[in-house]
Amino acid sequence: MVKFLGQEEAINIDQELFNVYKFSVDQLMELAGLSCAVSIAKCYPQCKLNNNNILVFCGPGNNGGDGLVCARHLKLFGYCPSIFYPKRTDKPLYQNLTTQCAAMEIPFLTDVPSVDTLAADYSLLIDALFGFSFKPPVRPEFVPAVEAMQKSGVLVCSVDIPSGWNVEEGEPETGGLQPDLLISLTAPKKCAQNFRGSFHYLGGRFVPPSLAQKYQLDLPEYPGTEVCVKL
Amino acid sequence: MVKFLGQEEAINIDQELFNVYKFSVDQLMELAGLSCAVSIAKCYPQCKLNNNNILVFCGPGNNGGDGLVCARHLKLFGYCPSIFYPKRTDKPLYQNLTTQCAAMEIPFLTDVPSVDTLAADYSLLIDALFGFSFKPPVRPEFVPAVEAMQKSGVLVCSVDIPSGWNVEEGEPETGGLQPDLLISLTAPKKCAQNFRGSFHYLGGRFVPPSLAQKYQLDLPEYPGTEVCVKL
Repeated sequence: MVKFLGQEEAINIDQELFNVYKFSVDQLMELAGLSCAVSIAKCYPQCKLNNNNILVFCGPGNNGGDGLVCARHLKLFGYCPSIFYPKRTDKPLYQNLTTQCAAMEIPFLTDVPSVDTLAADYSLLIDALFGFSFKPPVRPEFVPAVEAMQKSGVLVCSVDIPSGWNVEEGEPETGGLQPDLLISLTAPKKCAQNFRGSFHYLGGRFVPPSLAQKYQLDLPEYPGTEVCVKL
Repeated sequence: MVKFLGQEEAINIDQELFNVYKFSVDQLMELAGLSCAVSIAKCYPQCKLNNNNILVFCGPGNNGGDGLVCARHLKLFGYCPSIFYPKRTDKPLYQNLTTQCAAMEIPFLTDVPSVDTLAADYSLLIDALFGFSFKPPVRPEFVPAVEAMQKSGVLVCSVDIPSGWNVEEGEPETGGLQPDLLISLTAPKKCAQNFRGSFHYLGGRFVPPSLAQKYQLDLPEYPGTEVCVKL
C-alpha cells in the first residue's frame, strides 16, 4: 500500500531531491511534466475526445512549471494545448519554459475563457495551479480560474493536488474542484485519499531507492519503462 | 525518408535548441538519456540477457552526460549498470549527474576491466564516449576503452555516434567499433548510414516542429507517447 504524504514530508522529500541527490529543477520538472502528459494521453486518447483542445492552467510556482512542460509534450503527442499563465515569475527557468511553449506554437490566453466557451471549445482542462506547498484559501486573483474550471463541466486533470484543496485534508467544504484525473507526483499526498474521480496516476519516476526507503514510500512498481503508473 | 545530418548541421541544430528555443542542457540531456535507456530496454529485455550487468563508458562531454542519465534510468528499470567515467569536468551539471548516479548506488569503476572480465561479467556495454562534435582520431587516453569494448565481443550500444567513427564518413579503415544498437539523438548523423548492427533507434523527442521544418529533418512519427522510435 502506497504511502500518502503529509505536507511537511512532501516538502522535505522535495528538498532532499535537490540538496542531497543534486537533481536540478529543470531535470525533475521535465520528467514530472512528461509523466503528466503521458498519463493524460493514456486516460484520454485523441480518438475518444470530441476535439484535441486542452487548456492548461499554470500557477506561479513549480506546479505551473510542470504544467508548461506537460503542455509542450502534449503538443508533441498531437494534442492542441493552449495555456493560461496569468502570474509569471522572473526566474530564467520559467521564462525559458514559456519561450519553449511559444516557439512550439502553443497559444497563451490572456483571459480565462467564459464557462460557455470552455465547455464548447475544450475537451480537457489541466489544473496546474497549485502544488504540495499550497495553503488555502485560493488567492482572489486565482478564484475566477478555479471557478471557471469547476463550473464548465469539462473534464479536469489535476497535477499533484486539486487546486484549492488542503494538501492533507482534501477538498474545501463547498465548491471544491473535482478532477476526473489526478496525477500524483513523486508520491501521493494525503488529500489524494479523498479523490473520487475516474483515474489516479503516479508520475515522476525519479525517486532514488534509498530516498523511498528512508521515507517508507512503498511506491508501486512502474511497469517496464513507463514514466507513470495507475494507482 | 529521414535526413542524415552533417557535423556542422548537427552542431547548428544543437545551438538553436539552446539559444533560440531556450532549452537547458539539463532538460534535453534528461530526455535524451531517458530515450537511450528505453531503447536499450526495448532491444535487450532483462529476461533475454544472461545477466543484468551493463557497463556505461562515459566521455568528457555531452555524450558522456547522456550516458550518466541513461545509467540512472537503467537502474530504475531494474538493470545493474556500472559506470566508467575517466575524464570528468568541473561543470556543476556533470558533478550533479555523477552525484545522482552514486546516490543511486551505481558503482563507478576506476579502470577499464580486462577483455576477459568484460566478456564474463557484462551483457551490454554502452558507448557514450564521443558525440556529434567528435573529430578523429581517438585521443590516446581513450584508446584502451574503445579497444576493450571492441575486443570483448560483448554487445555494444552506441549513443548517437559509434565512438571513433567520423561523424560524416563512418568507421575508420581498421578496428572500428561495430555497435549492435545505435541510438541516434535528435536526428541521425551521416555516419549512421554505414551502421550495420541489429537495431537503429531515434531518441530525443523534443524537436520543435518549426526547427524540424527549417532543417527539413523529415523525422519519423514517434508512436503514441513513446520517447524513442525504431528506424
